[in-house]
Amino acid sequence: MLKKINIHSQNRYQLIDITKEIEEAVREDNVVNGLAVVFVPHSTAGLILTENEEGLKKDWISFLSSLVQKEELFHNKIDNNADSHLLSGLLGQNKILIIDSGHLLKGTWQQIFLVELDGPRERTIIIKILEG
Amino acid sequence: MLKKINIHSQNRYQLIDITKEIEEAVREDNVVNGLAVVFVPHSTAGLILTENEEGLKKDWISFLSSLVQKEELFHNKIDNNADSHLLSGLLGQNKILIIDSGHLLKGTWQQIFLVELDGPRERTIIIKILEG
Amino acid sequence: MLKKINIHSQNRYQLIDITKEIEEAVREDNVVNGLAVVFVPHSTAGLILTENEEGLKKDWISFLSSLVQKEELFHNKIDNNADSHLLSGLLGQNKILIIDSGHLLKGTWQQIFLVELDGPRERTIIIKILEG
Repeated sequence: MLKKINIHSQNRYQLIDITKEIEEAVREDNVVNGLAVVFVPHSTAGLILTENEEGLKKDWISFLSSLVQKEELFHNKIDNNADSHLLSGLLGQNKILIIDSGHLLKGTWQQIFLVELDGPRERTIIIKILEG
Repeated sequence: MLKKINIHSQNRYQLIDITKEIEEAVREDNVVNGLAVVFVPHSTAGLILTENEEGLKKDWISFLSSLVQKEELFHNKIDNNADSHLLSGLLGQNKILIIDSGHLLKGTWQQIFLVELDGPRERTIIIKILEG
Repeated sequence: MLKKINIHSQNRYQLIDITKEIEEAVREDNVVNGLAVVFVPHSTAGLILTENEEGLKKDWISFLSSLVQKEELFHNKIDNNADSHLLSGLLGQNKILIIDSGHLLKGTWQQIFLVELDGPRERTIIIKILEG
């Protein structure tokens, strides 16, 4: 099964919890055991698993900003969003999750987040479910 | 096949080679060709492939520490372990490996490591093997 | 299907677009729906998805260098290439892509790059295609 979900971001850098949407796709598919591949077809957004806690979400924004704060290094990109491209590639645009007995296997403090790095924008999340 | 392995870490930051455990799971499954998905259901640990060399393991600890050393940025997390969450999300909590003719495909200098980022703790490693 | 491709790098740090090679492997396999796992069996190279733009490729080199520029931290590795190992593990050596209706699903600005971190060298790219 392949499902596409549209997400609208509000800020330039933003963490958006998409766990419910992924879990719903797994339920709809009625798969018992297999894999769920989550993918964003964008080069200025990423995916991470982290805890959904307000303070930590702010820390993520500070942390990502700190990694690309040497702006003098990034003078080449026409759209002036080199930071967005670099962080997107660094975090990666895909995650693979295990489905066991109809449920996503993940830890209590692991939620799935779209990381917007050049918002606000419309983003697409693609979920592929494979049985096995 | 789904297998869970428990690992006990000793230090706050620590690299633990889990290659043998993953290889044993592949052998037990008798799979010829397919994929092995390795996953840690934690938000303060990660997985990497790197060389098992004493000096390099120390360099990993220095490197990870250097990425989150701006402590003034991270004041929001209640448990005072923002660094652990950020590095866990950055490294990622899953790896996908190819199984070919009954063996994990990997380079001579590529070992699979659990990266403990908030130890000492009991950790779980989940291995899912898919034929195909 | 399992395919191996050899790539020759020219510089110490270098981004090499391997999108055509991966797309060709997908075409050769005649797979309609499934997954393509791309893997480099090396501990001093990585894989990323990013835009193929000259300025951005230069920014990637600057960015990666900036992450490991505290050389005083990395004195342990015999071969004097701790930076290569650390960045390889950080970027990761695998990517998983979705195949839909015979084509790789990816965004307009997402190309697949081998990131050479200790060149010049001969590198191997392994592509595993799974139907499903």
